[in-house]
Amino acid sequence: MTSRRSFLKAASTGSLLATLGPRAARTADLRLNEIEARIARRDFRALIKEDLPTPSLILDSEIFDQNLRRMAEHSKATGLKLRPHVKIHKSVDVARRQLGLGAIGLTTATIAESELMSSSGLKGVFWTRQPAGRNNITRAVALSKRDSTFLLVVDDPIIAELVEQAAASAGARCTVVVDVFAGLTRHGMQSGRPALELAQKVDASKHLRLHGLMGYSGGASHTRGWEERRKKSCDDLAGLLETVELCRKSGLPVNIVSGGSTGTYNIDTENGLTELQCGSYIFMDTGYRKVGGKSNAAVYDDFGAALTVMTTVVSKRHPNQCTIDAGNKALLRPTDEAKGMPWITVENQGAEYGILKWKDGDRDLKLGERVELYPTNLDMSVNVYDRIYVARGEQIIDVWPIMGRSGAPQR
Amino acid sequence: MTSRRSFLKAASTGSLLATLGPRAARTADLRLNEIEARIARRDFRALIKEDLPTPSLILDSEIFDQNLRRMAEHSKATGLKLRPHVKIHKSVDVARRQLGLGAIGLTTATIAESELMSSSGLKGVFWTRQPAGRNNITRAVALSKRDSTFLLVVDDPIIAELVEQAAASAGARCTVVVDVFAGLTRHGMQSGRPALELAQKVDASKHLRLHGLMGYSGGASHTRGWEERRKKSCDDLAGLLETVELCRKSGLPVNIVSGGSTGTYNIDTENGLTELQCGSYIFMDTGYRKVGGKSNAAVYDDFGAALTVMTTVVSKRHPNQCTIDAGNKALLRPTDEAKGMPWITVENQGAEYGILKWKDGDRDLKLGERVELYPTNLDMSVNVYDRIYVARGEQIIDVWPIMGRSGAPQR
Repeated sequence: MTSRRSFLKAASTGSLLATLGPRAARTADLRLNEIEARIARRDFRALIKEDLPTPSLILDSEIFDQNLRRMAEHSKATGLKLRPHVKIHKSVDVARRQLGLGAIGLTTATIAESELMSSSGLKGVFWTRQPAGRNNITRAVALSKRDSTFLLVVDDPIIAELVEQAAASAGARCTVVVDVFAGLTRHGMQSGRPALELAQKVDASKHLRLHGLMGYSGGASHTRGWEERRKKSCDDLAGLLETVELCRKSGLPVNIVSGGSTGTYNIDTENGLTELQCGSYIFMDTGYRKVGGKSNAAVYDDFGAALTVMTTVVSKRHPNQCTIDAGNKALLRPTDEAKGMPWITVENQGAEYGILKWKDGDRDLKLGERVELYPTNLDMSVNVYDRIYVARGEQIIDVWPIMGRSGAPQR
Repeated sequence: MTSRRSFLKAASTGSLLATLGPRAARTADLRLNEIEARIARRDFRALIKEDLPTPSLILDSEIFDQNLRRMAEHSKATGLKLRPHVKIHKSVDVARRQLGLGAIGLTTATIAESELMSSSGLKGVFWTRQPAGRNNITRAVALSKRDSTFLLVVDDPIIAELVEQAAASAGARCTVVVDVFAGLTRHGMQSGRPALELAQKVDASKHLRLHGLMGYSGGASHTRGWEERRKKSCDDLAGLLETVELCRKSGLPVNIVSGGSTGTYNIDTENGLTELQCGSYIFMDTGYRKVGGKSNAAVYDDFGAALTVMTTVVSKRHPNQCTIDAGNKALLRPTDEAKGMPWITVENQGAEYGILKWKDGDRDLKLGERVELYPTNLDMSVNVYDRIYVARGEQIIDVWPIMGRSGAPQR
């Protein structure tokens, strides 16, 4: 059991009252309902980060804008088209900005994400997980019928056959990309002749239209070291490119060759892809920052860390540590990092609790203080929130809904 | 790269078409919109598990009812009251059933969960994380004003002071429980004199009403082996019980002594608690089943595994493995288990992908086949879904919304 002295060391009253006191008057009336009402009428004038409930997802708009522009410029300069991945943000607002800067469409992981983007009027949605099961096949065919720019993949003649049958019975025509193995055994038809035969089957199907090929080298995206990543991506994509050649020689249409990730955006220009599926570049996370960049081997800093989880210190009873109100459900992880406080380490604690630790001599965190954390994995962190608060400095300037999550009706 | 033969081994067409064919006719019209419309009008007659999108959360109503009854009977037999934890289900429907069987209230982890339950008319909500930060203090005081049965905790004189100030300014009176350290450094005032002094401070505060004490021995809940768990719980709660004695001797009211978990429900009858905060018993997960029970050292089977995540096989290109549409976002974990298929092992793969593996000779899973997984951690699995589908056998008989999740406005 901890000593009384160490228990009480933390409880030196006064500092918190001083911290909370002055602002409390200004925003005493800013109850949650009022904040919600302001957001609904898009009146953000008096809304600052301090007013928000925690844990909350916060986007630094300046860094985000820089990230968007940087990737758009890269795409323009290299001629490698960008079809950014939606799973990172699940936000129509973010997608609109990406398309506004020249992206040719959007890449999605689920039929729900695809429906969300397409029904918002966004074109060129490319769903990269083949439909399997009646629910997904029916929805993919229905979406193809509503939106002729929607693309779906197959990696199996069985699915090609089922989609053809469903499209025939729905009077639809589906535009199909053949998914070719590129290192991850979770999906992709074997490259070379098997993939060629699948492409031929698609091309010969009355209600399917062959559009091209894809291959996702997921192993390359997080390989540490730019040269190592380059080698991995090159190796993984060799079979895809061989298949592209085979298809072209056979007279099949190959309008797109899609692949790549934020980790390989400046690598796959060499690898014969026509378009990139990058997603994480818009926000970045601690996982990506550690893989190292081309110009900075230690930190991958081509894109800035724009997204944080805002938390509050909810208990402070032991020296050199405090408890925050972000836990497993906020997807707190020991690899998260505290913004502006590199001396802090993060520990899991439970559903709604996390612990931050520091060493003697570091600045103490106080009860009620707010701490922003850089999350480790964007896909998952964004997935558990309903919205992103967009900030310029301390000021909230926008709120974007996150949709199409793991909720069953949204699949 | 995998050999062509192994790639194509899986793709023996026919079996899937045969599987999907017959049912397809029956439910060809069961599009997602129609399923949603039926759910909205609570017409579940023709709805079966097979119709649901995946991944989906499925509750076995029979096992669930047994679990509810078993805990209710234990509570009646021992006189140890039950105030079940809401964080496991975040469902008003589940909470109503618990209260209907005699629970004296509900335990919550967040203010959002508390508001959700109280605003649904459920009484005796006990929020066990002290309010810190303006947002939570304001909401806790407002809830106390609206609902005199709402209980909140403090583990710090600073928070007691801030709640007193906020209650005074709102003209409210808050009923407060002192949170005493019970082994987890994430919260709880040191037991003995420090906790007594905090209780005295609460009791002396004009707008606070001292109701009792709590201590959560989180380390005990998942200690393997019933006897080891018993010892751990006893050790962890000793300080709490010493504090209860001190408070009683000092003439302070101790109406409740709250604590415990599903892991210690049949242990803490010995430990001087007056009520239990158990949550997981209603659904159970693979984590809890492995800690061992009093009567069964290998498997903790006092309560049955009632909750599964329904998934679909979405790719089948390699021998002895298949890809399912539940990944990190569905909180798939290597410690999950496939229902009815103990030979299957589970592997993480990415945001929307998981891999199931088996050995030569085991039954193969086929493309499009459905697999139900027992999740490892209930809190987190439930948190990413919008609803629970309640099943009796294959038939869906109810759908319960999950609310108060990590979404910021719900905090």
